[in-house]
Amino acid sequence: MELIAALRAACGAAHVLTDRGRLRTYESDGLLQHAVVPRVAVLPGSAEEVVAVVRACRAHGVPWVARGSGSGLSGGALPVADGVLIVLTRLRRILAVDLANQRITCEPGVTNVAISAAAGPTHFYPPDPSSQIVCSIGGNVAENSGGAHCFKYGFTTNYVTGLEVVLPDGDVVALGGAELDRPGYDLHGVFVGSEGTLGIATRITVRVVPAPESVRTLVAFFASPAQAGQAVSAIVAAGVVPGAIELMDGLSINASEQMAHAGWPRDAGAALLVELDGPAVELEARFADVTRLCEEAGSREVRVARDAAERAVFWRMRKAAFPAMGRVSPHYYVQDSVIPRTRLAEVLERIAALARDYRLQVANVFHAGDGNLHPLVCYDGHAPGEAARAEELAGEIVLTCVRAGGSITGEHGVGVDKKRYMPAMFGEPDLAAFQKLRCAFDPDGHANPGKVMPTPRLCGEVPGPYRRHPLEAAGLAERM
Amino acid sequence: MELIAALRAACGAAHVLTDRGRLRTYESDGLLQHAVVPRVAVLPGSAEEVVAVVRACRAHGVPWVARGSGSGLSGGALPVADGVLIVLTRLRRILAVDLANQRITCEPGVTNVAISAAAGPTHFYPPDPSSQIVCSIGGNVAENSGGAHCFKYGFTTNYVTGLEVVLPDGDVVALGGAELDRPGYDLHGVFVGSEGTLGIATRITVRVVPAPESVRTLVAFFASPAQAGQAVSAIVAAGVVPGAIELMDGLSINASEQMAHAGWPRDAGAALLVELDGPAVELEARFADVTRLCEEAGSREVRVARDAAERAVFWRMRKAAFPAMGRVSPHYYVQDSVIPRTRLAEVLERIAALARDYRLQVANVFHAGDGNLHPLVCYDGHAPGEAARAEELAGEIVLTCVRAGGSITGEHGVGVDKKRYMPAMFGEPDLAAFQKLRCAFDPDGHANPGKVMPTPRLCGEVPGPYRRHPLEAAGLAERM
Repeated sequence: MELIAALRAACGAAHVLTDRGRLRTYESDGLLQHAVVPRVAVLPGSAEEVVAVVRACRAHGVPWVARGSGSGLSGGALPVADGVLIVLTRLRRILAVDLANQRITCEPGVTNVAISAAAGPTHFYPPDPSSQIVCSIGGNVAENSGGAHCFKYGFTTNYVTGLEVVLPDGDVVALGGAELDRPGYDLHGVFVGSEGTLGIATRITVRVVPAPESVRTLVAFFASPAQAGQAVSAIVAAGVVPGAIELMDGLSINASEQMAHAGWPRDAGAALLVELDGPAVELEARFADVTRLCEEAGSREVRVARDAAERAVFWRMRKAAFPAMGRVSPHYYVQDSVIPRTRLAEVLERIAALARDYRLQVANVFHAGDGNLHPLVCYDGHAPGEAARAEELAGEIVLTCVRAGGSITGEHGVGVDKKRYMPAMFGEPDLAAFQKLRCAFDPDGHANPGKVMPTPRLCGEVPGPYRRHPLEAAGLAERM
Repeated sequence: MELIAALRAACGAAHVLTDRGRLRTYESDGLLQHAVVPRVAVLPGSAEEVVAVVRACRAHGVPWVARGSGSGLSGGALPVADGVLIVLTRLRRILAVDLANQRITCEPGVTNVAISAAAGPTHFYPPDPSSQIVCSIGGNVAENSGGAHCFKYGFTTNYVTGLEVVLPDGDVVALGGAELDRPGYDLHGVFVGSEGTLGIATRITVRVVPAPESVRTLVAFFASPAQAGQAVSAIVAAGVVPGAIELMDGLSINASEQMAHAGWPRDAGAALLVELDGPAVELEARFADVTRLCEEAGSREVRVARDAAERAVFWRMRKAAFPAMGRVSPHYYVQDSVIPRTRLAEVLERIAALARDYRLQVANVFHAGDGNLHPLVCYDGHAPGEAARAEELAGEIVLTCVRAGGSITGEHGVGVDKKRYMPAMFGEPDLAAFQKLRCAFDPDGHANPGKVMPTPRLCGEVPGPYRRHPLEAAGLAERM
């Protein structure tokens, strides 16, 4: 009650929500399998108000969770039942646009697409999650978000140069700056991808890059994802770095066709969407190379987007894949994991075998250049036991990727969804190193508790053994 | 004595040096202005021996400094008088070359150039310090080294994907891995550039990239560096991303001519070396653009390297600039700082005015795309007071760069040389945040003590005000 009074004093009563009905708006993010109603939600209107909120929480010993647009897929913004949800959507000002030095500084609630809009048409901001129309740059920073263009351009961490951060103790620090490379520890680098556990970014400076002179897009159809995967390997081996290289399997093609009506062949086993960007004179030659490499890998047909309108249709097919799956299956679970590109064929085969074993459909859509899979596990939540079976299958897929030398997450973060798999990737000393960092900045454990780390543990505790996920067989091979 | 016995037991007596004469080999790195003879130097032959050495130091409460090739320019490998110097030159095995996945794993003592050699001819490792023939990848990781090709390709931090690290407490952790982007905190990112204060990397996995199909190089001569700087801005604004874009002033051209004999005009005020790499078909058109932009900016002559031999001569001119200065001046001090590219002209003017005030010559050689200056302050160490005057001038140059919105170091690190300038760039809470991280991993302060942070401070101490450098006028503008 005292805390609520302090929050009202800091942000105005209108921006402090305590009504359970209104709070339910915030009970989950894009990971719909989990929901928790927070005790109170507060919407600060300035960096100063964020500081006041964090300090009030600290003074009252109450945990808090920061939230951007709530489009995250790993439950990183899942509230804590007895805690404060700090909603940053009111912090949506673009503070500085300096295109001569390729920098934009903005508040965390600014949407991803608004940054490219502020930089355009001469420049753009490359990391482009599919949710870019709604997702916030603050959330992108927390999750180190990627997107279709990250194979060529890199992830959020490659574009954030500076952050103003409110630490869990209420101190405000400047991490990084406008320069690419600053002295001292790369704390802004470690903050990117820290999933809300080290503080709240109140100002974010990102690098924007010159828009490419020209863009060309094609789609090649194959008999199977494995065959398309061979084309990907051939393209990369030839030294071509496409702006995007996306793979959809037959199930996704069929689902997307129902929404985007591109007229793609319903009987294709896979579609490979390849986009080249750069100087026009380069594209012509490179584009011919890519077409040839796709044909050599066995593509039955290569279609080139004739104009911007057709290019938009191609992308609509790709971006429709997630929502379109909702028409094919009552529920689905978006998985996100990474494999070495060279092991694509065998991992896809294993996923298909698992899907058969679990009697569930799995659609595959992925950032093929990065080996970043997005298996969509389809299920009917109303059928008894099917949701649990889907979750178990999703877990098996994750562990299959780790066993192939990959990662439990590519771009969606660990959050609550993947934390149980952390011991499959990290040894005890590695997890203890994470904990050292976390405790250095949040000794009380108030910042987004219960996320990322597999087992809750107080700072200062003597490290005990982390429990491995029961699905995980003993002894994963050493990774390095 | 007990410690020395432990080191001998761990690494063999032949690899433990205690003789003062032999220890003098290690009394400094490339920052020749400082020298300290360590108590003992040890050369471990394996990661296990590094662990044993670090644990022995910890058990005896003795500080240590890790050293690679000793070519660093900021004194990062300067020994501690009562401490152990851990020399990593025996750890020079390349452990794995996986070109299909663009990864090489090696030990820290492997030279920078040996990595490109192992990756070639199809691939190469882009960050290329001028010292690349001798400098070690471990040192590159510690300093987050750059080089001429970093404008296009990025710094060491953009290429290190995984590290095996011996922490100051003797624990061995795997940070990152083979993937570009891993879950959990980006600790390998924070380790890169931590200047030996967080532990010792015993295995390093880096990303290598396909070698460009074609390379073309030109040099354009201008009346002044400011005029050449305008050409740089025009080239970047046109969306061209050269593989390298290096600027030398008249003084450096004259010094280099004495060593490299390229036949460049002695009366030119500046030379701009521009190298484009990529697909041949792109280069032709882009190269014509660059030539035109140089001419439009007022270049009196543009010379294109006709073949690989002439290209090598151009680069020899650039790389000779530092050593050649030794023929012009008995001593010189290599400065390293960064400015926003847009403020090149005014900063160069200010440096020239300072040089006049201090009655010293300053040559300017720099990575122009990054705005990374390398002013060479020339002095005669035998003339009374001149060394001190040179150091003061170098300090004024650093602060001039910071006031222009730049950084105290671009790629050489803070070490002992720049630590006094840290308060010119970082506020009290920012420095305290660095200290939090350092103490989380090295609570005893044994790892490379006395480096990076402006004021030595024990972990757990209540933060007091950091002292600003006396040269620094009160109140630098807020940076973000």
